[in-house]
Parts: sequence; C-alpha cells; structure tokens
Amino acid sequence: MEILVIGIGAGDPDHLTLQAVRAIERTDVFFVLDKGEVKQDLVELRTEILRRHATDPKVVVGRDPDRDRTSTAYVESVDDWRRRRADVCADLIGRELGEDQVGAFLVWGDPSLYDSTLAILDDLQDRTDLRFTVEVVPGISSVSALAAKHRIGLNQVGKPIQVTTGRRLAQSWPDGVDDVVVMLDAQTAFSGHTDQDADIFWGAYLGTPDELLVAGKLSEVAAEIEQVRAEARERKGWIMDTYLLRRNHR
Amino acid sequence: MEILVIGIGAGDPDHLTLQAVRAIERTDVFFVLDKGEVKQDLVELRTEILRRHATDPKVVVGRDPDRDRTSTAYVESVDDWRRRRADVCADLIGRELGEDQVGAFLVWGDPSLYDSTLAILDDLQDRTDLRFTVEVVPGISSVSALAAKHRIGLNQVGKPIQVTTGRRLAQSWPDGVDDVVVMLDAQTAFSGHTDQDADIFWGAYLGTPDELLVAGKLSEVAAEIEQVRAEARERKGWIMDTYLLRRNHR
Repeated sequence: MEILVIGIGAGDPDHLTLQAVRAIERTDVFFVLDKGEVKQDLVELRTEILRRHATDPKVVVGRDPDRDRTSTAYVESVDDWRRRRADVCADLIGRELGEDQVGAFLVWGDPSLYDSTLAILDDLQDRTDLRFTVEVVPGISSVSALAAKHRIGLNQVGKPIQVTTGRRLAQSWPDGVDDVVVMLDAQTAFSGHTDQDADIFWGAYLGTPDELLVAGKLSEVAAEIEQVRAEARERKGWIMDTYLLRRNHR
Repeated sequence: MEILVIGIGAGDPDHLTLQAVRAIERTDVFFVLDKGEVKQDLVELRTEILRRHATDPKVVVGRDPDRDRTSTAYVESVDDWRRRRADVCADLIGRELGEDQVGAFLVWGDPSLYDSTLAILDDLQDRTDLRFTVEVVPGISSVSALAAKHRIGLNQVGKPIQVTTGRRLAQSWPDGVDDVVVMLDAQTAFSGHTDQDADIFWGAYLGTPDELLVAGKLSEVAAEIEQVRAEARERKGWIMDTYLLRRNHR
C-alpha cells in the first residue's frame, strides 16, 4: 500500500502544483476526516479540486474525533486527539485500501507546517499491522500565500524569522527575532503587543474569494483587524488567518 | 506595465503551481540575471520550464553584478549589491518592456524567503521613473521540499520554528527554539553544534536528479554530511542545500 500526503495549497485551487495534480491522478482512494459542517467552504473547495483533477474519485469519509479544547495540558490533549484520529484512519485504510492501491490525504497548505497527518501515519506504522510507504507532496503554505498577497519578503536581509503559534505569542514576543509569523491564533495575540514599534501583515481565507488583507502599523490597525476578523468569523462561521509581525530596528 | 514575480519551486519542474503556469503563459518578457556559468544546471532547468509552458518566450538576460563576499559588513554589502542589481533591472525593464506588456522574474523556491527580487522592485519604484504593478506567485520553498523528502513536519506540536542563516547559526543556537531551519549556509555551521542532543535532516539539490539527503543524529552524521557536501560541490561546481536541526527535549 502507498499513502500520498498531498499539500493542496492555502485555498486557491491554482495553488496546486503539477506534482500534486499527478499525485491526485494516480490516487485510488481519498481519505477525508470530516470536521463537521463548520468549514463547509473548505469541503466544497476540496471537492472542486477533485472534480477538476481526479477521474471518478473514491472518497472515504471518517468522523474526525472532537478535540478537548478546554484542556490546559495542550500537548497531551493534542497527542490524545491524534491517537484517536489515527485510530479512525487505521480503520478507514484497513477497510478501504487494497494491497496494490494508492491512498491519499489532501492537506491544506503544506504538510510540513502545523499539520498532523504525517505524525498520524507514523503512529499508525508504530501501533498497527498496517504497512505502507509514504510520499509527501509539498504545498503552498498559508505563510507563502500571505507574503505573496502582501508582496513582501518574510525575512529582512540576513535576519531570522520565527514561525510560532498564537498561544505562544500571547505569552511573549519570541527572543532574538524581529520577524514573527503567527499561525493558529484564535485569540488575536497580536493585540497584546501594540506597545511594540512593529508592522503587521494580516490575511484570512487566503487565496479564496473571501480573502481579507490588512496591513499597517500594529498599534494603528490592531483594533481594525480584530473587528474585521470578528465580523468575518460571525458571517462565515469559521476563520483561518495568519500574519507576519515585523518589528522595526531598535 | 506589470511585473510578475513567479516562484518556480525548489528544483523539480513539477513544483510549478497551476497559478505559476498561467502566469508564465501570459508573460511577454522574462528577465534573467545571469550569474555566470557556475549554476548552468539551474539555467537549463529554467529554460526547460519555459520550453514546457511558454510559447515563443522572449528572454532578456542582464549581467548580475558581482557581490563583495569578502566584506565583513554583510548587510551593507548586500544592500550595495541589491542597488547595483536594481540598476541592471531598471535598464532591462526600461529598454525591453512595453507599456502594455507583462514582464516576469522567475524565482527559485518561494519569493518570500531569502530572495531579493521584491526588494529590488520596491527600490526601482522608489528611485526611478519606472511605474509598474507587481504580482507575486508563491512557490514551493526549498524548506517545504526538504521536509517533504524527509517526510517530516518542520514543527513539533504547538512549538515554534526558526528559519535562519548559516552565518547566524555559526554564532549561536537561536534562543527559545528547538527546531531550526538553516538556509544560505556556505560554512556547514551545523558542525559547531555537535555537542547538542539534536537530529539533522539535510538536503541538497532538492527536487533535481542530483538530490542528496542525509538524516540522523547530528553528532553521528555531521562529518558524513560535510564530506558528501564537499564532494558534491567539487563535482558540480556549486551546491544549494538546506537543513532542519531538531533538538530533543531537555
């Protein structure tokens, strides 16, 4: 058995690489973990990608286990959730994928960035009798899409960038870096840093018709972004956003 | 005038996105700064991409100014080099691109990561009379390609990643991060950190037929990577490599 983990980009169907198109073409079974109705737009976008590039695709949908988001033990909570996710995947793969077939997971953005699919497949190989090879097709991350839409580089000349989570930025600005890319921020952690002399480049629903972009001096646009974000989330029922904070030389 | 900055991926022609293909199709003039014969393979790869996707492309080649690599004032040296590069570009664009035409720069990897094209175009708009719009097409970075080939995530659950340069890693391991992606490392800076309990995932010529991959415990494979790297560089005359250092929990 062979499992492809295919990065399909940040939301624009044209983010798909030629490598991803070929991978989709040779896939027998697509595995999907259904996150419920919340992100119906994303389900439709994925369906549209399959409609364009797969011939008579077989799509197998599993129920994504709920994650305990109230837990304070974040890593343990994620580990437990991954374990249960892996059990769902093991069941789907064992039942639906033939020995000589190719299965695939379509991953938003890039599979290497804050995505759990590869860890789940590693876990499956460790814990079950399932044996398969894994091939990863890199994708356009929401970070690359963000930078492209704002027409900026992520780094300044010769300087580092840190990619981190909203949860961590809420604790403190990372040491030793002026350029910080923030993902998975449900709590608008940028608002805790308006005392910094920094710019923010923010984007939501990148690459989709709903795309939103705001950029400016952090202290001046933080409130605007909070408002735009809250309204969009209310309107659509979900939001996926990311941003770069760029602190000016001190 | 319109200028497209098109990320063409890390070396595999199939890293090209559908968006990049469409951008290439609507380009009238491709601008290329010739780095000399050193990276002839890259020139051929770019030519191959144009052969596949552009119809009768007009390619204009400028002479890339030499950079003063002996300078200790790194940022100033890069700034000066960019300025001279911008002058070459201004000349090419002014001479070769018509008012209603679309020009393009093809950029290896992703234009947002350690690439100077966007800064050069900003500089041109500031310093010259040239007026053009800029559109950026994101690409598969060598970092995404590296992670895909090693079938790993760049981050650990809920943890940050730092992307930095070999020059900085040679000074010290960055504060506050266990996962460090290193680019532009001409001096195998990883070898200065073999006292760390860390793994390394290294790759060179990613996505090309010459691709090299080595992974393992840093203290055990550092010497091997140095040797593989030196031999490959000698054999091909150039090398482009990148790696992830992953420090184990302390």
